[in-house]
Amino acid sequence: MTSDPYGLARVVGEPGVLPQRAARLDPSLPIRSDEMLIDVESLNVDAASFRQIRESCGGHPEAVVERIQEIVRSRGKLQNPVTGSGGMLLGKVREIGPSHPAHGNLKPGERIATLVSLSLTPLVIDEVRGVRMDVDRIDIRGHAILFASGIWSRVPDDMPETLVLSALDVCGAPALVARYAQPGMRIAVLGAGKSGALCLAQAHRSTGGKGQLLALDISEKALATLAELGVSDLSLRVDATRPVEVLEAVKKATGGALCDLVVNCATVAGTEMATVLATRDGGTAIFFSMATSFTAAALGAEGVGKDVTMLMGNGYVPGHADLTLDLLRTDARLRVFFAGRYL
Amino acid sequence: MTSDPYGLARVVGEPGVLPQRAARLDPSLPIRSDEMLIDVESLNVDAASFRQIRESCGGHPEAVVERIQEIVRSRGKLQNPVTGSGGMLLGKVREIGPSHPAHGNLKPGERIATLVSLSLTPLVIDEVRGVRMDVDRIDIRGHAILFASGIWSRVPDDMPETLVLSALDVCGAPALVARYAQPGMRIAVLGAGKSGALCLAQAHRSTGGKGQLLALDISEKALATLAELGVSDLSLRVDATRPVEVLEAVKKATGGALCDLVVNCATVAGTEMATVLATRDGGTAIFFSMATSFTAAALGAEGVGKDVTMLMGNGYVPGHADLTLDLLRTDARLRVFFAGRYL
Repeated sequence: MTSDPYGLARVVGEPGVLPQRAARLDPSLPIRSDEMLIDVESLNVDAASFRQIRESCGGHPEAVVERIQEIVRSRGKLQNPVTGSGGMLLGKVREIGPSHPAHGNLKPGERIATLVSLSLTPLVIDEVRGVRMDVDRIDIRGHAILFASGIWSRVPDDMPETLVLSALDVCGAPALVARYAQPGMRIAVLGAGKSGALCLAQAHRSTGGKGQLLALDISEKALATLAELGVSDLSLRVDATRPVEVLEAVKKATGGALCDLVVNCATVAGTEMATVLATRDGGTAIFFSMATSFTAAALGAEGVGKDVTMLMGNGYVPGHADLTLDLLRTDARLRVFFAGRYL
Repeated sequence: MTSDPYGLARVVGEPGVLPQRAARLDPSLPIRSDEMLIDVESLNVDAASFRQIRESCGGHPEAVVERIQEIVRSRGKLQNPVTGSGGMLLGKVREIGPSHPAHGNLKPGERIATLVSLSLTPLVIDEVRGVRMDVDRIDIRGHAILFASGIWSRVPDDMPETLVLSALDVCGAPALVARYAQPGMRIAVLGAGKSGALCLAQAHRSTGGKGQLLALDISEKALATLAELGVSDLSLRVDATRPVEVLEAVKKATGGALCDLVVNCATVAGTEMATVLATRDGGTAIFFSMATSFTAAALGAEGVGKDVTMLMGNGYVPGHADLTLDLLRTDARLRVFFAGRYL
């Protein structure tokens, strides 16, 4: 029985507004019975937010630290007022309210990462211990509060921390693929980045090698690196902003059948139609790209008379963190892929 | 066997670009073997496009006609360069190529409406016969070309034409509801406009009266009109841009269970979180509102840790026109509802 799962009572002066949209949160202690208190060790700032802060501070580490402290002091959370984005944190559980869903599961002292954005997490910084300009991270001493609806993951100690954080950042994608991928399916993944790699690895697992897995990207180099994972059957070098080019390539690769499932992990805008056209009639497309335009997808599919089930990639799928960490744990090549890109 | 289902060969000077994105189409005759030729009677201009043209012409009908002719002359299609939108047309089949999928089904002389946008339909205006400023329509003599992928619907003669066109405009919504609504479900529809009314009518049919149907809108008057349809169990007057208010109302109405299916037919922006919060964990949300923000929905669901399947409302679902016309044909109150709003 939780009475305030979304943390509305922490919003200052704007009744009925959710914490993410609120100007200011109250991060004061003690916690309520349905909250969790975390001793924070480091803040992984969202890449877009960190870049904005760094550039507005002329690249000076001290100025970056000061700006971050200023935001947290005035807002009670680390939400960059320019980009609107936050990041995630790493820390140790200090206390779990008796009504919090993790009560009895997590214990004080355990290390966790929060998988909800810092843009909605009450936070106090007591001391800054260091800043790592290269990985958008600051190490601090302070506390944060997690609501009952706030998702988290234990940080395993059998893998490098940076690897874990980098994978958890996109863990919703492979977990949603696991729901839709079935043996025998033809599946295409657009975008050979870390999200695309995890989706392909999961598709490979879900299809049990029965089916056809296509990796699509504009970069020959990215495709070559991805191919080393050994999870895709074919790499197609295409420009996903050119739908007809993608259609022809996928048509050829699938003997005209097109794909049962197309997963969009592109980082650029304008890839909606390529996704729709690569999907067979009656098939499913999942959009994870944050550059996705709702109207381009909805009106585009109608324009070409294509019956495609189009899913918005919800970043939360129950069990997504464990599923993703398990993919990494059991696949050495996937760990190498991540290490090469992000460590 | 169709060789050019998307009409790429009609695009002038931009190889590989789809007709909707193209600056100019070639509407010249004769048609190719996989095309259909239509004698156009009237053009129903998209509301946003018509408003822009009307305002830029100071409201003068002659100037509006001239501007539309100018667009069609220069682009070979009626796509407003400012709004990017088109509309739909009404006409009689003149000729059907032997490789067009409608060959053998439709006959020359039959009246049809096209359900793909005028923004991708090759068009020539020979003569303008009249303009109806009140319903965004111009009557013409001319021809249009439909590609193999272009969807259309016969215009039945047992219902007023304006009613038919108005319903066909949103026919994808009830058809998608028909795929997901099941007896016993709790279903909420946000937005009491024509799209919302059709979705509720279909939900009522799909659930067979077993379940719970909620109509949500900000306007007491709109809800009262909708209630006369007799298809919803309860009307909730809420502001869908205030997610917590919607959550509380839906929670109360459903005894805390929330909804298995939430259908967003809102016309305003900022209703994503209300949709997500009104849906139960494991439930489904369908977004038809063209004001939907992809990132607000995807990041919002993650922020509150909600496992909701989020679908983008594809405007094309096989059989959508017949399903919608059948809803109108068998429900006199629905016809009255539409007549009151749009005739």
